[in-house]
Amino acid sequence: MNLTTFNLAVLPDSMEISESVIFATLLLSAIIIFLTSHFCEEACARLRLPPVLGQLISGIILGVSALKILTFTHGDVDINPMVIDLICQATGASTAEAIVAYSHQLTAISESVANLGVIALLFLIGLESDLDRLVKVGPQAAIVAGAGVILPFVGGTVGLMALFGVATLPAIFGGAALTATSIGITAKVLKELGHLQSEEGQIIIGAAVLDDLLGILILAVVVSLVKDGRIDVANMAYLLLSTTVFVAAIALLRTKIADAFDAITQKLQSDNGPLVLAILLALIMAAIANIIHLEAILGAFAAGIILSGTRQQTALLHKLEPLTALLAPVFFIVVGAKTDLSVLNPANPGSIEGLWMAAFLIVVAVIGKVAAGYLIPAAELNRLAIGLGMIPRGEVGLVFVGIGASVDILSSTLTAAVILTVVVTTLIAPVLLPWAIPNNIASEQQA
Amino acid sequence: MNLTTFNLAVLPDSMEISESVIFATLLLSAIIIFLTSHFCEEACARLRLPPVLGQLISGIILGVSALKILTFTHGDVDINPMVIDLICQATGASTAEAIVAYSHQLTAISESVANLGVIALLFLIGLESDLDRLVKVGPQAAIVAGAGVILPFVGGTVGLMALFGVATLPAIFGGAALTATSIGITAKVLKELGHLQSEEGQIIIGAAVLDDLLGILILAVVVSLVKDGRIDVANMAYLLLSTTVFVAAIALLRTKIADAFDAITQKLQSDNGPLVLAILLALIMAAIANIIHLEAILGAFAAGIILSGTRQQTALLHKLEPLTALLAPVFFIVVGAKTDLSVLNPANPGSIEGLWMAAFLIVVAVIGKVAAGYLIPAAELNRLAIGLGMIPRGEVGLVFVGIGASVDILSSTLTAAVILTVVVTTLIAPVLLPWAIPNNIASEQQA
Repeated sequence: MNLTTFNLAVLPDSMEISESVIFATLLLSAIIIFLTSHFCEEACARLRLPPVLGQLISGIILGVSALKILTFTHGDVDINPMVIDLICQATGASTAEAIVAYSHQLTAISESVANLGVIALLFLIGLESDLDRLVKVGPQAAIVAGAGVILPFVGGTVGLMALFGVATLPAIFGGAALTATSIGITAKVLKELGHLQSEEGQIIIGAAVLDDLLGILILAVVVSLVKDGRIDVANMAYLLLSTTVFVAAIALLRTKIADAFDAITQKLQSDNGPLVLAILLALIMAAIANIIHLEAILGAFAAGIILSGTRQQTALLHKLEPLTALLAPVFFIVVGAKTDLSVLNPANPGSIEGLWMAAFLIVVAVIGKVAAGYLIPAAELNRLAIGLGMIPRGEVGLVFVGIGASVDILSSTLTAAVILTVVVTTLIAPVLLPWAIPNNIASEQQA
Repeated sequence: MNLTTFNLAVLPDSMEISESVIFATLLLSAIIIFLTSHFCEEACARLRLPPVLGQLISGIILGVSALKILTFTHGDVDINPMVIDLICQATGASTAEAIVAYSHQLTAISESVANLGVIALLFLIGLESDLDRLVKVGPQAAIVAGAGVILPFVGGTVGLMALFGVATLPAIFGGAALTATSIGITAKVLKELGHLQSEEGQIIIGAAVLDDLLGILILAVVVSLVKDGRIDVANMAYLLLSTTVFVAAIALLRTKIADAFDAITQKLQSDNGPLVLAILLALIMAAIANIIHLEAILGAFAAGIILSGTRQQTALLHKLEPLTALLAPVFFIVVGAKTDLSVLNPANPGSIEGLWMAAFLIVVAVIGKVAAGYLIPAAELNRLAIGLGMIPRGEVGLVFVGIGASVDILSSTLTAAVILTVVVTTLIAPVLLPWAIPNNIASEQQA
């Protein structure tokens, strides 16, 4: 493929791009993104793989690793010239105009939509959570979740520093990216195996929810450390304090806010009043988290958990699902597009370290979660299945990578290694779980 | 209120704005916009007014006419300094950074979302249409629709030119903005009056659908003329030809595309396959319309009409409604925010002409539709009610204003006069219709 690097610097700074060129470019980008991701998601669905993998792969295809249609480099813009030609032909714009319009659309719109998409996703994950169920399997789930967070986090961080000489902050980030468990993927596999309602299934789901919470808290603290660029006692103390106050405030005010939400929505008369009010709550809590130097997604997740206790939960889930189905993929596509997989090309001698790093992270990610399963005292449970069920990192692992990229902390090698870890852990759970769990789909379907 | 005009020109061109400031600004803009429009929509719902009025009013409150929080002027940026202070305090950004981030978010994101919102809206309107019903009341509806488009269009255009000395193209645009009928508002009022299923009700709905189609076709041709800046025979012939070919192609291929859509979606295995495929069709047809110099919304509307004949119609409506409920308001908010109502301030002697213009347009808009009702040959029908039912311009009238503003054809006086016409016609239909129709809610509710 013959790719040219366009140099933005040679373009006049104040070039006026006509609104119709901008609009046509917006349409074209949306078509390319939706078409590719639809194709990849469909392929994944046929291979019984989770849709998030399809979105990630479509991003990798469109991005810097392959077609270079969706690129985010500033200054020198590395865009596939076929896209620029297409825009020029469709709109009659000059090449220079087309490049400015396209890179403008890409950086401003894709990243904003991706940011809103990950907020919508975490809001939905929070909203889907069932706190009553969590309390029932609480003690066992807490053991699995706690150990399943600490083991990969510590193992990953220490290993990255000791074996690969990674600096402290990126190493912490890499370790933290190994903590989360994807509820979506695990639940889907368990359902297909007919094991979702078993005690093991309930423990896995409960632990996955706790994992998400712990993972997002770790992310909030780590990103904040990265932004300040220093780890000192005062800074750590401030972050732990603000995280604690935030979580405590949610825990204390949760039912009060939920009751107030129910009372207000009952009086609302506008057509989509509850939906708009719910989104407002998510945005405001995201802004609050952002202002006290935590991550916006923590606020959105907390808003979802609060609203999971309202009478509107089902109605809101119903209305938010199609919205999230359109917005959240953009986040994973952007993550994939920004990942330069060429740093892991086995043919290139310079990639060997990255591949070893990926192999190490995968081993830590798998062993950490399986070991966590065996820490449950009740030996009559299928503890191997519980551990294996916690392996897939999925969405939340990718959220770590995406946010890590946005604060510029991860090297391209570490980013690619973490992405590969997420992909592999997500792929092996559906393979290993059926082997550990006797298939009883029939009993589940009758239940 | 003490408003300052910030001058973008004094800011360094290449200022690097940190991603966290951009993100915080995005969150803040979203909160301000959703909060204000939610409040206005709720107020309208309580006054039994259509939500679109609430969205328009919230835009006017936020925009250049009042608070100046949502402003789109380029170069000198007229932003309410309270917002800039808020961003600075929340993010720690400098005033200059906050201004660049905010105006960047406003122009790029709000306008893109507004554009996608109006595409989603027209797609939904097309998808909701019931072609079978239209065929049944066809002849009468065609008379009402045809006359109801021609009379206000010709009356408005000629009057604007003859009485107010408006140039040909803006006058055509002003006349064209009077042609559409808002299905949503009319249907809601008829339903409340218990008259939706009557023959009059069916004729009104049928004529409103045809009106939308004719109005959007006129808009496509007029905007294209405006973009080329000239009315010559070759140009007109090209536009009429491309419009005819486009409509004929849709009419011919409609069932084939719908059948293909049904066949493909039946085979899709990914979770939101049909939804994503439907949106892809809307985007691609919008792009095709755009490329052959028609309006993108015409393509989206046609995609909706095509998909209204598929088995997925209900499921798609269900999933697209929450999405449109979030996106489309942004379009009306942006229209309101861009409208400078001060040009119609009665205390200002310079506004007298604009007010006369608005009064003239309102009279033409009302008389044109009522006269169209009386052109139906069947005297046993309540022809006054049919004419009155066609009066509200609502969404589609505002789509004309929004697109007129984007191609820079309407003077601020004419824009404000058309907006006032849309508002007044939308407000008087719910007042006049009950007077023309004997109330029979009971019979409708039992049906």
